[in-house]
Amino acid sequence: MRVAILAHEKFPGDAKTALGVLRYADHDVVAVLDRDSAGTQVGDHVADVQDAPIVSGMSAVDASIDALIIGVAPIGGGFDESWRADVVTALERGCDVIAGLHYFLSEDEEFARLAEEHGGELRDVRKPPEDLTVSQGRADEVDAEVILTVGTDCNTGKMTTTMELARAAAEAGHDAAVVPTGQTGIMIEGWGIPIDRTISDFTAGAVERMIREVGDDREYLFVEGQGSIVHPAYSAVTCGILHGAMPDKLVLCHEAGREAIHGYESFEMPAIETYVDLYEGLAAPVRETEVAAGALNTSEYPETAAADAIAEFGDAVDAPAADPIRQGTDELVEALL
Amino acid sequence: MRVAILAHEKFPGDAKTALGVLRYADHDVVAVLDRDSAGTQVGDHVADVQDAPIVSGMSAVDASIDALIIGVAPIGGGFDESWRADVVTALERGCDVIAGLHYFLSEDEEFARLAEEHGGELRDVRKPPEDLTVSQGRADEVDAEVILTVGTDCNTGKMTTTMELARAAAEAGHDAAVVPTGQTGIMIEGWGIPIDRTISDFTAGAVERMIREVGDDREYLFVEGQGSIVHPAYSAVTCGILHGAMPDKLVLCHEAGREAIHGYESFEMPAIETYVDLYEGLAAPVRETEVAAGALNTSEYPETAAADAIAEFGDAVDAPAADPIRQGTDELVEALL
Repeated sequence: MRVAILAHEKFPGDAKTALGVLRYADHDVVAVLDRDSAGTQVGDHVADVQDAPIVSGMSAVDASIDALIIGVAPIGGGFDESWRADVVTALERGCDVIAGLHYFLSEDEEFARLAEEHGGELRDVRKPPEDLTVSQGRADEVDAEVILTVGTDCNTGKMTTTMELARAAAEAGHDAAVVPTGQTGIMIEGWGIPIDRTISDFTAGAVERMIREVGDDREYLFVEGQGSIVHPAYSAVTCGILHGAMPDKLVLCHEAGREAIHGYESFEMPAIETYVDLYEGLAAPVRETEVAAGALNTSEYPETAAADAIAEFGDAVDAPAADPIRQGTDELVEALL
Repeated sequence: MRVAILAHEKFPGDAKTALGVLRYADHDVVAVLDRDSAGTQVGDHVADVQDAPIVSGMSAVDASIDALIIGVAPIGGGFDESWRADVVTALERGCDVIAGLHYFLSEDEEFARLAEEHGGELRDVRKPPEDLTVSQGRADEVDAEVILTVGTDCNTGKMTTTMELARAAAEAGHDAAVVPTGQTGIMIEGWGIPIDRTISDFTAGAVERMIREVGDDREYLFVEGQGSIVHPAYSAVTCGILHGAMPDKLVLCHEAGREAIHGYESFEMPAIETYVDLYEGLAAPVRETEVAAGALNTSEYPETAAADAIAEFGDAVDAPAADPIRQGTDELVEALL
C-alpha cells in the first residue's frame, strides 16, 4: 500500500503514529505532511526508518497513493480543522483515509459524502467492532505461544518492544504475528481492536477474539500491552488484556529513570519486583505465566549509565533484559522463544 | 415512588432485580407482574421483604403507579416480546418505565412514541452517560470514608452486602450512602453508572465521578463492587472499580463452598488468602487499603456448617466475618466504621 502520513506541526517528536508507521509498517510511505518542516526529508530528523519527503500538504503530493494516514493523536483525540483541506484532497482523489481519532471521520458529513462520491473508504481504527462479547477464557487453546508485553506505566515501549520482538522472531525463521491493541499498532498491522475503547465487560473478550482469530495459524503471537496494572486511570484496560490474552510469557517494559506515573506524578511507581509479583500473581488464577524478559527504554541515558540501568533492571525482573532499540532483541528473543 | 415490578415467569428465584427493589428500595411496590404466580402474594414466596400482590399483567394493576420496573435480566439482556403489552399499558397511563436491559427501551419506536405522547419517561439504566472521561486519581480527596465490596467471583453477595452495610450504618446514626455500579443497585438507589458498560479507558473515571459527586456530603460511602479481580472475563471491570474508588477499606464477599468460577468451571478459585493479597497488593500503589471484613453467603448451608464456614472464612481473611443475611452486620459494621 502506498500512503501519505499527516503529521502537521508535530513531526517527528509528537507524531508517535507517524513514526510507528514509518518504522514498522509494510506500507510504502510516499510523503509526510508537515507544514512546519516542508522541504526537508524524514531522514533529516530520524534515523533507522524509511525515508520520505516532507511536504506542506496533500496538494504537494504528486504521486498516486492508496491512503492518507492521520499520523498524529492530539490530546482529547479531536480533529484539527487545519487538516480538513488535506483530507478533502485525499478523498477527492479516491484515496482511503485512515485515522485513530476519537472524532470519527466516518461521521463527518463532508468526508462521508466525498468518500461515497469518489469510492474511498474512511477507516476509523479507534472504533471497536459492534459484536464484541464476553471472554470464554479460552485464549490458551490456540496453537501459538502467546507473549504479552506489560508495562510499569503508559508510554514505556510496549508497542515498540512488541514490534521489534515479532520482527526478530520472523527473521529467525519463526511464523510470528503481532496482535495489535492500540491505534498505532492497528495502523501498522492493518487489523486489530482498540482495546481501550471496548466496553469493560468485553475487554478481555476482545483480546481473546483476536488471539483465537490468528492463533492457530502462527507459531508465536506477540500481544501489544497497554497501560499498567497499577495505573490510576487505565488499569482496567491492562487487566482485561492480561486475563483475555492468557499469555505464556510476559515481557515487562519500563523507562529508565521514571519514578512516578506519567501525568499522575503524585503516584510513585512501586519497585520493579512488585510489578513482577503483581503481574504474575494476578495472571496465575486464570493462566500461570511469568515475566521471562525485561525491556528498558534508555533513550535518555548516555552509554555507561544505560548499561548500568539495564543490568539493574535485569536483576529486578530476575530475567534477561535489554533496550530493544539500543541493543537489539537477541538476548530477549533467546529468553522468549 | 409507587411502582409495579415486571418479573414474568421468574419470580422469585430468577428475578434478582425484582427482589433487590422489594428488599432495599424506598419505593412502594404496588404489584409484581408474574403470569405464573398470579393470585399469590410476594410474602408467599419470600420472607423479609415488603409484601405485594402478584398479578398477571399491567391490566390487572388498578392502583395508580409512577413507574413500571423491569425486574428480570435475561441472559443476553434482550427484551422479551411477551412483556410488550405491559410496557405499552404502563406508558399509555403516563408511567415511567425503568429497565436495565442491553436492549434500550428508549430506542424502541413504539415505546418512544408512547412515552412522548403520554408524558412518561423511558429510563435505560444500563446506558452510561456519554461524557465520561479518564480518572484523575482523586477519589481519595472526598471527605467520606470509602468502603468497597470486592468478591471472589460474580454473584457472591457484593450488592446485598453493600446495601445491608449502608442500612446498618444509617441505623447507627451515620450519614451513609451507597454508590451503585450495577443495574439493580441503580434501580434501588435511583442514580448511578453501570460500570460494566463503560469504555475501559473510562471505567475508573466513572467510579471516581460518582464518588466525587456525593463524597463530600457523606460520612461513609459504600461502593458496590463487581466481578472478581481474577475473573477470566470480568476482571477489567473489577480492576477499574478498585483503582477508581481508591477505597479506605475493603469487604471481601464469598459464597461458602464455591470452589470454581461460576460459569467458568475449569478455573479453580485460588485460596481466600490469595484474594486478600491480590486485592490489597494491586490497590496499594494507587491507594493503600486493607480487607477489613469478610461477608460470607451461607444460604445453602445448615446452621452448624454455616458457623464453621464463617469461622474458617474469618481466619482466612484475617478480619471479622459474618453472613450479613443470616447473622446481621453488627460485627462487620464495628470493624468498618
